[in-house]
Amino acid sequence: MAIAFESLYSDIHGRTGKLTVGKKTIKTPALLPVINPHLQLVTPKEIQSMGVEALITNAYIFSQSKQYRKRALTEGLHKVLDYDGVIMTDSGSFQLSVYGQVSTTNIETLSFQRDIGSDIWVPLDIPTSPASDRNSTEQDLSVTMQRLKEAKEVFGKDAPLAGPVQGGNFTDLRERAGREVTDLGFSFCPIGAVVPLLESYRYRDLVSVVMAAKRTLSPSVCVHLFGAGHPSMFALATAMGCDLFDSAAYALYAKEGRYLTTHGSFKINELADLPCPCTVCRSHTIEELCTAPDRERLLALHNLYVTLAEISRIRQAIFDGTLWELVDERCRIHPQLLSGYRALLTRTVSLEKYDRISKRRFFYRGDESCNRTEVFRYQQMLSRLHLGEFVLIAFEGGTRDEFNDTLFFKPPFGPYPKELKETFPIGPSEIPEWDDTMVRKGCKGIKILMESHPDSRFVVSCNPCWEAIVRQELGNIEVRNDQV
Amino acid sequence: MAIAFESLYSDIHGRTGKLTVGKKTIKTPALLPVINPHLQLVTPKEIQSMGVEALITNAYIFSQSKQYRKRALTEGLHKVLDYDGVIMTDSGSFQLSVYGQVSTTNIETLSFQRDIGSDIWVPLDIPTSPASDRNSTEQDLSVTMQRLKEAKEVFGKDAPLAGPVQGGNFTDLRERAGREVTDLGFSFCPIGAVVPLLESYRYRDLVSVVMAAKRTLSPSVCVHLFGAGHPSMFALATAMGCDLFDSAAYALYAKEGRYLTTHGSFKINELADLPCPCTVCRSHTIEELCTAPDRERLLALHNLYVTLAEISRIRQAIFDGTLWELVDERCRIHPQLLSGYRALLTRTVSLEKYDRISKRRFFYRGDESCNRTEVFRYQQMLSRLHLGEFVLIAFEGGTRDEFNDTLFFKPPFGPYPKELKETFPIGPSEIPEWDDTMVRKGCKGIKILMESHPDSRFVVSCNPCWEAIVRQELGNIEVRNDQV
Repeated sequence: MAIAFESLYSDIHGRTGKLTVGKKTIKTPALLPVINPHLQLVTPKEIQSMGVEALITNAYIFSQSKQYRKRALTEGLHKVLDYDGVIMTDSGSFQLSVYGQVSTTNIETLSFQRDIGSDIWVPLDIPTSPASDRNSTEQDLSVTMQRLKEAKEVFGKDAPLAGPVQGGNFTDLRERAGREVTDLGFSFCPIGAVVPLLESYRYRDLVSVVMAAKRTLSPSVCVHLFGAGHPSMFALATAMGCDLFDSAAYALYAKEGRYLTTHGSFKINELADLPCPCTVCRSHTIEELCTAPDRERLLALHNLYVTLAEISRIRQAIFDGTLWELVDERCRIHPQLLSGYRALLTRTVSLEKYDRISKRRFFYRGDESCNRTEVFRYQQMLSRLHLGEFVLIAFEGGTRDEFNDTLFFKPPFGPYPKELKETFPIGPSEIPEWDDTMVRKGCKGIKILMESHPDSRFVVSCNPCWEAIVRQELGNIEVRNDQV
Repeated sequence: MAIAFESLYSDIHGRTGKLTVGKKTIKTPALLPVINPHLQLVTPKEIQSMGVEALITNAYIFSQSKQYRKRALTEGLHKVLDYDGVIMTDSGSFQLSVYGQVSTTNIETLSFQRDIGSDIWVPLDIPTSPASDRNSTEQDLSVTMQRLKEAKEVFGKDAPLAGPVQGGNFTDLRERAGREVTDLGFSFCPIGAVVPLLESYRYRDLVSVVMAAKRTLSPSVCVHLFGAGHPSMFALATAMGCDLFDSAAYALYAKEGRYLTTHGSFKINELADLPCPCTVCRSHTIEELCTAPDRERLLALHNLYVTLAEISRIRQAIFDGTLWELVDERCRIHPQLLSGYRALLTRTVSLEKYDRISKRRFFYRGDESCNRTEVFRYQQMLSRLHLGEFVLIAFEGGTRDEFNDTLFFKPPFGPYPKELKETFPIGPSEIPEWDDTMVRKGCKGIKILMESHPDSRFVVSCNPCWEAIVRQELGNIEVRNDQV
C-alpha cells in the first residue's frame, strides 16, 4: 500500500521519476486531471485513453453527494468513475479554504477516502492564505501538523497518505513544515495553498515558498504542487523540483469559454484563429468552434491536450538536459513569470547542487542564460585548474610560446584550456554574436581564475572592442590588443 | 486571372491579408504544403480538410513524368491532384539550383504551367547561391529579370505570374531586384534562394536579404519566402513582411524520421516523449509511434499540424498586435535565430514606419524588448510634448507644486505625462521588476525630451539605486533622492 518515489533523470532541481502507489506505477512529472463527478466534460475513460495514469477527485464531494456517496462506498471509487489508474482524493481542504468550514473531521475524511478505495489519501490540512499574518499561519500550521501526525498514528506508517506542506507566505514556516513532514515519514507531499499566488501572478513569492519547502523536504519525496493547473508555469515549478500538477482548469476554463495555451489563456471570442496543433483546433475554424453545440466539451479537450503535451515537453526537456531552455521559453510569456524566473536564477548556488553534470547542449537564450547553473558550476571549477606562471587568455587566436599556458575564452563561461574544448559546457554550447553581458560574465570566470591562482600572472589578448569591459571587470590586468 | 493582394491587420512589418488568384481567395499568412505527386504521404484532399487553401507542386516534375504529364495536360492539375484550392507551380528553378541545368526553357515551362491549369505560374528564374560572387550574382540576376520581362510580354500583364526576387547575398542587388519586379508590375513575389541561408542557420544574413528586398518591393505585393518550411522561423519572416511559406519539410522530414516542433526538430528515436497536442502525439506513445507501420505518414501528419498551427498562431498575434512577443519566443530557440532577431531589432527605424499605432498590450520579455518599435516610436513622440520651464521626472511618487510639469517614468519607455497613463504603450504594458537595462533605455527617453526642450530645466527624483544610471545616461541633470 505504501507510496514510493524513485527519480530517474534529473535537470536543475527537476527530475523524471516513477511514483509507485500500491501495485500501480505512474511516470512523473505528471498531470492529474481533476474529475468532478457532477461535471464530466471529458470522462475518466477518455482521459485514460490519452495516456493519463492518475487523476484526482474530491472525496468531500462524494461524501456529501446523495447521488454518489453510497455508490462510492459500495462499488468503490474506481468503478464509479470507470477508471483503473491511480486515483488521488482531496479531503475537503479546498472547501475549507473557500467556505471557511467543512462538515467532516480529519479521521472521518481519511476513513471515507480509505473506504471508497482511493489510492492516495489527503488529511484535512489547513490551506493558509498567503495574506495571513504570522500568528494565524503558525496556528494553522500547528493544526495541520497535528492532523498529519494523527493520520500516521491512526492509519499506520504504510497507509497511502499525502503529507501537505503549508506555512503560507513565510519561508521559515514552509521550511519547518517540509522538515516535519519528512520526519513524519511522508513520501508524497503536496505543497499547499499556492493558488492565491498563482491567481495574482506572484511568481517571485511562488519561487520563495516552493524553494523553502524543497530545502527541507527529502529528495526522495514526490512533490505535488497542489492546485497548479496552468501549463505555462509547469516548467518553472518542475525546475524547482515539483513532480505533480493537477488541473481543474481544463474543465473550469472550458465552462467559461476560455482557451488554454502555453503562452497564456484567451477568451475564445477574442480569438481570430486557433493557434494549436490539436485535433479540435485543426478540424474546426474559430467560427465553427464558437458556435459548436458541444463547445464546452471541445474546449475541455483542447485544454487537456495542451496541458498533457506540456508535461510531455517537460519530460523530454529533462531527458535532454534542456529544462533551463524550456523554463526560459515559458517564463517570458508574462512579465511576472519573468520576474519569478529571474528570482530563481539568483538561487543558482542552491540549485547547482542538484543539477546534472552533463547535458545534451547549452543554448544561449538571452542575458538570463548567464546566470544558469552550468555557468556557475563551470566557473567554480576554474579554481581547480593547474596553471603555470605566465598565462595567456586568448579571446581570439592561438597559443604563444612565451606563455606557460594558454587558455581560450568562450562567454558566458570564461577561460578554458584546450582539453575542455569538446566537453560540456564548452563544446556543446551555442551562443549568438558576443555581447557585453556575456563577455562581462565570462570575465567573472577570469576573475575566479586569477583569485584562485595568485602565483600566476595573466595576460588577456582580445579585440579592442572588449578591452573596456575586460578592464572594468578585471582592473589592472595586462591587455594586449594585437591579434595573436 | 490577375493576382491581387490586400492587407488587413498589420503588426511590425507583417500583416494578415487576402490573396486573390482568379476567383479564388486565400487568407495570409499562409503555408503552402509542397505536394510531390510521386510521394503523397498526406493527400491534397486531406490537406484541404485541414483548412489549407493553397498548395504548391512542381510543374517540372509533372512535365518530365511519364505517369503524370499527359494526365495533367488533359485532365488538368486540380483533377489529377484532387484539390480545388489554389495550386501554385514551381518552374524547375529548384532543379536548376540542385542539378545546375534543366531541360526546359522559360516560355516552355510557363506554357506548360498554363496548360495544366496552375493558378500561379513561376518563370524559370535563376536561384543564385549566397556563396556566389558579385559578378555571377549580377549575371544571374540579369537573366532572371530578362525572363520575368519575357514572361510579362508573352503572357500579358494579367497572367497569374510570380516575380521572384533574386540577388544572392548582396543587399543592393536584392534591392534592385525588388525595384525591378515592382516596376514590371508583379503583385506576387517569392524571395528566392534563401534555403542555403536557412540550412546553415545564417539568420543575420536572412534578415539583411529579406529586409533589402522588402525595402523596394511595393507594400501591395504579396511576398512568398520561397523554400522556408520550418515553423520556428515563420514569425521572424512574417515580422519582416513575408506572407507565404511553403513546406516540403513536413514530408521530407517524415521520410527521415524527423519530428518538427516550433522549438526545433528532433530525430524521432531521440525522443523520450511526444511533446505536442496533436492527435498523432496524444494517441500514441513514443514507442508506438516509432514502431507504427505507417510511421512516415503519422510523422508527416504531425509535422503538418504543427506547421499549420504556427501559421494560426502568427495570424492571431498580428490580430492582437503581439507579433514582437511571438518573434521573441521563437527566436530564442536557437542562438543563431537570436542573432537574427537582434539584428532585426537594430532596424527599428525602418520597421517603425510600418508598425501599427495601438496594440492589445506590450509584454516585456527581456532586454531585447527595449529595442522594439513601440519604444522607439514612443521616445520619438516625446519631442512633441509641450512642457513648462521647470519639469520634474518622478520615478516614484506624485507631483510637486514647485514644478510647472510633472512627468512620471515607466521603463523602458521613459517619461510620460499623466494624460498618457492609460494609453498605449504606457497603459497596456507590463514589465517585471525594474532592471538596469530597461531603466537605462528609459533614460534615453529623458535625453530625447531634454534635447528637444532646451528651454526647460529638468529634475529627476528617484530611488538612490537608480541614481548612478541616471547620471551615466544624463550627465549633469539634477537628481533628488528624497521620496517625493
